[in-house]
Amino acid sequence: MLPPIEKPTAILNEAVARRNIARMAAKVRRSGIRFRPHFKTHQSAAIGEWFREEGVSAITVSSVEMARYFAAHGWRDILIAFPVNWLEIAHLNRLAAEIELGLLVESVETARFLGERLTAPASVWLKIDTGYGRTGLRWDDAEGQIAVARALSSGRTILRGLLTHAGHSYAARSQEAVGAVYAETLSRLSAARDRLGEAGFPALQLSLGDTPACSVVDDFGNVDELRPGNFVFYDLMQIQAGACSYDDIAVAVACPVVAVHPREHKIVLYGGAVHLSKDRLTRADGAALYGEVALPADGGWGAPVPGSYVSGVSQEHGIVCASDALLEQVHTGDVLFVLPVHSCLTVDVLRQYRTLTGEVIPMMPRP
Amino acid sequence: MLPPIEKPTAILNEAVARRNIARMAAKVRRSGIRFRPHFKTHQSAAIGEWFREEGVSAITVSSVEMARYFAAHGWRDILIAFPVNWLEIAHLNRLAAEIELGLLVESVETARFLGERLTAPASVWLKIDTGYGRTGLRWDDAEGQIAVARALSSGRTILRGLLTHAGHSYAARSQEAVGAVYAETLSRLSAARDRLGEAGFPALQLSLGDTPACSVVDDFGNVDELRPGNFVFYDLMQIQAGACSYDDIAVAVACPVVAVHPREHKIVLYGGAVHLSKDRLTRADGAALYGEVALPADGGWGAPVPGSYVSGVSQEHGIVCASDALLEQVHTGDVLFVLPVHSCLTVDVLRQYRTLTGEVIPMMPRP
Repeated sequence: MLPPIEKPTAILNEAVARRNIARMAAKVRRSGIRFRPHFKTHQSAAIGEWFREEGVSAITVSSVEMARYFAAHGWRDILIAFPVNWLEIAHLNRLAAEIELGLLVESVETARFLGERLTAPASVWLKIDTGYGRTGLRWDDAEGQIAVARALSSGRTILRGLLTHAGHSYAARSQEAVGAVYAETLSRLSAARDRLGEAGFPALQLSLGDTPACSVVDDFGNVDELRPGNFVFYDLMQIQAGACSYDDIAVAVACPVVAVHPREHKIVLYGGAVHLSKDRLTRADGAALYGEVALPADGGWGAPVPGSYVSGVSQEHGIVCASDALLEQVHTGDVLFVLPVHSCLTVDVLRQYRTLTGEVIPMMPRP
Repeated sequence: MLPPIEKPTAILNEAVARRNIARMAAKVRRSGIRFRPHFKTHQSAAIGEWFREEGVSAITVSSVEMARYFAAHGWRDILIAFPVNWLEIAHLNRLAAEIELGLLVESVETARFLGERLTAPASVWLKIDTGYGRTGLRWDDAEGQIAVARALSSGRTILRGLLTHAGHSYAARSQEAVGAVYAETLSRLSAARDRLGEAGFPALQLSLGDTPACSVVDDFGNVDELRPGNFVFYDLMQIQAGACSYDDIAVAVACPVVAVHPREHKIVLYGGAVHLSKDRLTRADGAALYGEVALPADGGWGAPVPGSYVSGVSQEHGIVCASDALLEQVHTGDVLFVLPVHSCLTVDVLRQYRTLTGEVIPMMPRP
């Protein structure tokens, strides 16, 4: 039984999330590759335990704050997949003394900084940009990569390998396109490894694997570590990339209906930018889409209602462009579910889950 | 002296915020209109006290949760400028018993619901859509407005007047355009009041006034209440509308620099969508802009750096498209300030302020 809803609430279907975790863990296990799932999506120690039950012991996070939180909850092998933030060196030193800490380096300056300031050993990965264009050393900048590898001369910075995040796979619109991004990523990363091997840095590992690729690709090739994160909940972006089906989406936002305007085909939700985030997709007709909508069903939510979607959000309002069929079924005072465009950002703003049975699952506290 | 920055932090220039409050309070006082500032922007009891020092006693909020928070901090006249959420009727009844509560109604269903379920008197405003197109009764739907006014038959629902939010003024690109939106809004709202007067609902008040209009318009005309909110901090959207200057922006996000890539004219910040929000502007060259950047100066931040801006955000990363001049001055381990596109959403995700002297100012706790 769903808990009574008063305000926008992240509802988590635990069975679906556990199935997503089990399926991905089994797939990676079969491939013989190390599974280091990204915990930035769920940010929850309780959900972390569901991964542990599937044999996960190594994790990825995206901030020092998150590393501290999960270390405090018993995780002992944590990679911070974000460029080293010099201003948190004191926290990094405490973590490096306590756990197996992994860090990303993409500049000679940061390599030297760690050499001077790190007080306990840490694993270091060169952050490689294989085409996403966000940050990192370009895959074809052999000179730059070798310079950083050489600058990691301190005994405390142990060069483990090359790491990338092919975030452009999120823009893929088919399984074939996702597969093509993965193949290109792996090819570029492997070439960089070969060149570094020739330059005197042998046996480097490769770490990659976003959710679209890990969901779609069957043969991961010669890599050492996969780091998907979003798959625990999936979302509409992943549907668009062909990485999941609606049945795999594990989180939706329950939103009170506060007004219905049938003539304008509009339903107004208590549920806006501060509850859903502002990530959006573009529909085939060019309109922005901030979520799809579903009716309550079977103690959770049903299939998305065809022809209805969240067409706009302001701070607290969500505006649903509603089909006739939806308008016939929905009244002020009801609850509608919004399937998120990008679940990572949606749960980040809500900062707490309720399960279908009403249990509260907290996230990392902030600030 | 700025506090030491470790991670993305909302820095509040208290002097600028107090000046913004004092200036707007004085302007509205001179006009003889009731000032009911919107507190959804700052969401902070401490900042609320700065308004009280300027003589403010009536406030606007955008959720029942926020009304409860400010009522608990001594505010006794609160308008919830959001369609009544039936699922929070128990909270509304407690509030109506404790304070002067104002509610928005835009349907016969909600008017009847309040008539049946409200256990203490509340002021009711008809929510009118004067052209923004988000929610409310259309300004020219006299029949609809009269039907709702008639349905407010209970002795506990006291019809006070007509209220609108002309959110489309945020899209204005000049003071003239803002003034034109205000004039149209007032004309439509006044006509609706006249028609309701003729239908037997005399002496209704008018409530309107967003930040662009309240900043730019000199003669507000025959209205009863102004409700701007964003002006306490202002932001880049308000600059674009001609509503403020850079000197009026009271909040910026201090972000650690984690990588500098001069060849790509790129600076990578620890400061992404979960710190800045994803509201954006479109530059003249068509590129998306998620913030402008400023260097630390005079114990706070300086003028925005010409030709540099946040061009992309992911969950934790902000990517600055950086000018040569900026690249010469910035190094990994420094702190850059990001001026927010939309301060309401930025502070909503950060949920806490630090003043220039390092004092922590909390916001309403959530969840």
